[in-house]
Formats: sequence, structure tokens, C-alpha cells
Amino acid sequence: MSTLSSLAAAFRQTSYPVGGHGRRNIQILKEALDGLDGKLESDIYGTGESIESFQAEMAAYLGKEKAVFFPSGTMAQQIALRIWCDEKGSRKVAYHPLSHLEIHEEDGLKELHQIESILLGEKDRLIRLDEIIELKDDIACLLIELPQREIGGDLPLFEELVAISAHCRAKGIMLHLDGARLYEVLPYYQKTAAELCTLFDSVYISFYKGIGGIAGAILAGDEAFTAKSKVWKRRYGGDLISLYPYYLSASYYFKQREPKMGQYFEEAVELAVLFNSCQHVTTLPRVPVTNMFHVHIAMPKEKLEPILLELYAETSVGLIHYLRESSEGICSFEISIGDAFAQIPKDRLKLTFERLAAVLREG
Amino acid sequence: MSTLSSLAAAFRQTSYPVGGHGRRNIQILKEALDGLDGKLESDIYGTGESIESFQAEMAAYLGKEKAVFFPSGTMAQQIALRIWCDEKGSRKVAYHPLSHLEIHEEDGLKELHQIESILLGEKDRLIRLDEIIELKDDIACLLIELPQREIGGDLPLFEELVAISAHCRAKGIMLHLDGARLYEVLPYYQKTAAELCTLFDSVYISFYKGIGGIAGAILAGDEAFTAKSKVWKRRYGGDLISLYPYYLSASYYFKQREPKMGQYFEEAVELAVLFNSCQHVTTLPRVPVTNMFHVHIAMPKEKLEPILLELYAETSVGLIHYLRESSEGICSFEISIGDAFAQIPKDRLKLTFERLAAVLREG
Repeated sequence: MSTLSSLAAAFRQTSYPVGGHGRRNIQILKEALDGLDGKLESDIYGTGESIESFQAEMAAYLGKEKAVFFPSGTMAQQIALRIWCDEKGSRKVAYHPLSHLEIHEEDGLKELHQIESILLGEKDRLIRLDEIIELKDDIACLLIELPQREIGGDLPLFEELVAISAHCRAKGIMLHLDGARLYEVLPYYQKTAAELCTLFDSVYISFYKGIGGIAGAILAGDEAFTAKSKVWKRRYGGDLISLYPYYLSASYYFKQREPKMGQYFEEAVELAVLFNSCQHVTTLPRVPVTNMFHVHIAMPKEKLEPILLELYAETSVGLIHYLRESSEGICSFEISIGDAFAQIPKDRLKLTFERLAAVLREG
Repeated sequence: MSTLSSLAAAFRQTSYPVGGHGRRNIQILKEALDGLDGKLESDIYGTGESIESFQAEMAAYLGKEKAVFFPSGTMAQQIALRIWCDEKGSRKVAYHPLSHLEIHEEDGLKELHQIESILLGEKDRLIRLDEIIELKDDIACLLIELPQREIGGDLPLFEELVAISAHCRAKGIMLHLDGARLYEVLPYYQKTAAELCTLFDSVYISFYKGIGGIAGAILAGDEAFTAKSKVWKRRYGGDLISLYPYYLSASYYFKQREPKMGQYFEEAVELAVLFNSCQHVTTLPRVPVTNMFHVHIAMPKEKLEPILLELYAETSVGLIHYLRESSEGICSFEISIGDAFAQIPKDRLKLTFERLAAVLREG
């Protein structure tokens, strides 16, 4: 714990973190509000010009009839699954074993809705089409996460998604997209968000991951679906009198960063090459398919941490602020490329990885 | 609908609204952030110095071991009741027929928790001690709202609250305070928040009503209770990565307005006298016990609305932006005194009510 926080402290001191958009401080909100007139009226319980126009814009972006702004994706997705369960009269849904719903929500879906989750496939790989074909007909909804975050942001081929969608439609299984990082997959697929979302019955997107906003989510689908989602939003206590701090900043950073997702993707590919050039280091995926990937270093934490501390002090380039260690003594961490990467002088980045390669070779 | 919105539009044009703290626009957030350093770090999923220090401050204010910041009171209160139900092994709670949980939450408590609500007393008056004494022992929790908003912010005597608390403790019924407007009752009781809250096992307070913040709530109680509430907060999707837009503004306006509750209360008493001096007009309560009260005017909407429109145009004092009409043709509305009232020149206020009295006398 104390060594972990010393790595976090050293990372903070670096001038050039490789991932993210910079520090999560309140300047992010101040900047988003700076250009807006103070007389702009608050939304009131989900109504008002500013929230409605943002929702309309997002519905158009996603190619869906309607979109509703939520405080969080956790709330939005549980509600989406509950609506599809009610529609089918079944309390069974299917998703990946490392879905956010399964590992980060304290079993909210089960505790609040008594919905049973069928875990499809294996933890270390994507769900396969044949596994979906084997699903029983009583499944109300299949949730697909693009990219699959917990395995380095891996993605199925677009053709496989098309086949999954066709199969689910034929079988009467609703298809929900956990698109927390949806923007981040578009450069790889070379599709618009709307083209991708047409395969899905409902979609959730987040604004604080790739977009770098403060919090908040959009849930989109047809009018009947989103109307029901508003009732559930109120039941959850998510229908706040004012959500504007979130959607105004979401709108601001969406406009700024959604067009840069192609750049972040290319930079992730570039950075992964540098990591993979070091002995004992591999990235997952080897060649990233989004702006994110995982890094695995075959070295125990007690050995790797001092190496990173020295590297940060020497180069002022910060690779990561934490290390996860497996029982086999392999360290791993996640990198998401945002605005920060382009700030690193190229020669300094090169030097950093030359130093890292040299030390790991010795190690 | 169109006449209602013409009243709302006319109200907006007035320079002197009698209720509230002024317009709900984004300047409220800008102002709260203006004095803060942009480098102030965001909270991260309920942790971090700024959220923890605000929670500690509110726990001390309420005289409870711990306090947890929530996006909304709806979420906080359902969770409080669920925790007390789990502790007792019963799914029954009791509250007033016009409790927020019963009329404004789309039955979230029932739909998400299968908790049955026993409605105590009558819609048009406070719950009485004898009704509480008749409660069966299988009730997990009794929720008391102070002030009782839907009946004009009425309050029981402090001695009655003491007796209710003693009874509930003897019977093993947990007592929860819906203190959305808790600050607003303290001048009447002449008690501190902590003195009042000692009667209750758990307490919720809001920051956008009397305090005039943006949104957000505090749920307070002992350590075991609040620890459980954090797990439920995550299940609900209320454990946002960043809640700072809400608690930073809550803190800012709390400091500014909590000390002014006595003034707002006196002003409400003063304003109620003016209303009651007009024919056909009565306030509920006749003499307010907080900064809020309801106004009833024995006149149908189609007759009263043109009178108000003319009054607003003539005086630029705005009494209200909407009228509720009963089946008996009586109009009513709610007034909450905040910062706006003190801005009205006294002679203009006097003139407004002289004009209103004259027109109503003719009517």
C-alpha cells in the first residue's frame, strides 16, 4: 500500500503522463462553464432547452429515436436490462464474465431487480458467436461491451457483430450496447456511431472516459424504451432537479475530443510498439484496436516499482500510477490515450523507452 | 396550459419575486466555483479530501457518527429505509400519506425493494402520536418529515417528537428523519440540528431547497448504517466518479444561508400576515412555523389569473408562477422564503398587497 502510493506520488510529479487527458481537477468544470452565459437556465427534472437539445444531439449521433441523460452508466444499464426483462417477461440476461455489471456494481442488478446474469464465454477473451447461438430463448437481453475493457479493449470483427445482431433479432433477444467507450472503437471499425448502433436495440455511452468529462451517461433507444427509462430514472433517484454540471461539460468535451479518437487510436498503436520493444513486456492486445490497451510486465512488483520510480525521476515521463500483480508475479496496468500523449516531446518518449528497455534487459 | 405559462412568463418579467433565492441558472454554480482554485482535485468514487471533509462537517452538524453525500434524497431515503428493513427482517415502513416517497418517486420503494408503506394519519394534517402508538411491532422504520411540506410546512411540537422517539425506541422501530428542509425548522424549535437529530436514527438533508444549491443530499447515521448506505449507493449507480459540482456548491450555499434561516422564518410570518389581510385569502398554516407556507385563494383560476397578471405588470412584484386549482374552484400555491424577499422595497410590497386586497374585495 505504501509502495503503491509512492508510485502514485512519483507519477504525479512527472510532467508527461502517457495516458489520459490530464488531472481530474475542478478546472475541467470551470473551463466547460467559462464560455457559457451565467443566465443560461438550469434543467428542471430532465426538462428544459439545454438538456433536451443535448439529448436530441446524442440521439442523432447514435442514430436512435430518443436519448436520455443519466447521472451514471451503472443506473442507465441496469434500467435498460430491466426494461427488456419486463418486456419479455423473463429475468435473465447474458453478458461477459468481466462486465461492469458483474464486477463493479455490488450486484445491483440482482439486488434491485432479481435479474439473473448468464456469464458468456471466458474471462480472458471475447464472447464468441457460437456461444451466443447456444443461448436459450428465455434470455431477455444480451449485453455486448465495445471495447471489452477488462481484456485491454479488444473488439470482435464488425462482421461478427452483424451476425450476432441478426441472430438476436431472429431469436427475440434484445441486444444492448455497453458503449461506455463507444467513440473509441469507431476509428477501428471505420463506421459512424449510428452505423454501429443500428445493430443494437439500446445503447449506453459515457462522458468521463474517452471524452474526459465529469460524469454522466446517455441511454438511447426507441421512444417507448426511453419513456420507460425516465420512469425508472425517477425511481432510482436519478432524476435530479439539475444535471447541467454533467451534460454541459459532456457536451463541451464531446465536441473537443470525439473528433480526436482516430488520433488517440494511432497514438495507442505507436505506444504499444514502444512497450513491446522492451524485454519482459507485452501489450494486450499486441496491436491495440482502440485508444486503450493493457501492459503486462513479467516481473514482480517489488522489483518493477523501483525501476519505474527511477525512470520517472530521470525522464519526467509517467507511464502509470499503479501496478496490479498476479499470483504468478506478473505486473499489469491499463493505458488509455487522451490529450496528454501528444504533449510528450518525441525524443523524450524515445529516451524513456530506451532507458526502460535497458533496465529491463539487465533485470 | 397556455394561461398557466402566461402566468409563468409574467412572473419571470417581475423584478421582485417574493419567494426563493433567485433564478436557477448556471451562475449559481459559477459563483460557487469562482473562489476555488482550479487545481482542487475531484473526488473519486466517494473518496478524496474535499468530499470527506464536507461529509465530516455535515456529520458534526447533524450530531451523527458519519454522513454520506448522495446525488439525491430519493436515492438516499429509499436506501435508508431498505437498510432498516433488512436489519429488522421486515419489509414494512410507515410514513405520512403525502410523503415524497409516496407521491413523487414513481413507487421506487415498492418497485426496487418490495417494501410496503403503511400510510399514517390523514393527508391534511400531521401524523399524531396516538397513531404511532397503534403501529404494529413489525414496522421496521417510521419516517417523519420535518416540516411536512405538503401541508404548508407544518410542524409537531418538540415535546411530541420526543415522545414519538421514545416510543419508537421502546418498540424497536427505527426513526428516520426526512429533513430535506431541516435547517428551516430550527428557528421555530430553537434547537440545533444535532439536538433535533438525536431523536432520530438516520437523517437526510437536501441542499437545493432552503439552501439553494444545485442538487445533492446527505444521509447520516452511525458508522454501520452509513457503510451499508455506500454499498447501496453503488448498486443504485449513485456512486459517481465525481460529485463535486454538487457538494462544493452545497458547501458554499450552506455557509451562506444556513445562518439566515431565522430571518427567512420571520419574513415568512410577515408575508403571511399580508396575504391573510386580503379577503378570500388564507395561509396554511395561518402563522407559518418555518420559512414556507401555502396560500389558498377562494377564487377559480380563470378569475384569479388575470388579477395576478395585472398586479405583476403594475407592481413588478411576483407572487407566484403557477396556480393549482381544486375541484371546488379554490386556487393554491406554495411560498418558500429565501434571499429574494429582502430585496423587495417595503413600500412596494405594501402597495402590492393593498392593490391585491382592493381587487379581491371587488372580485
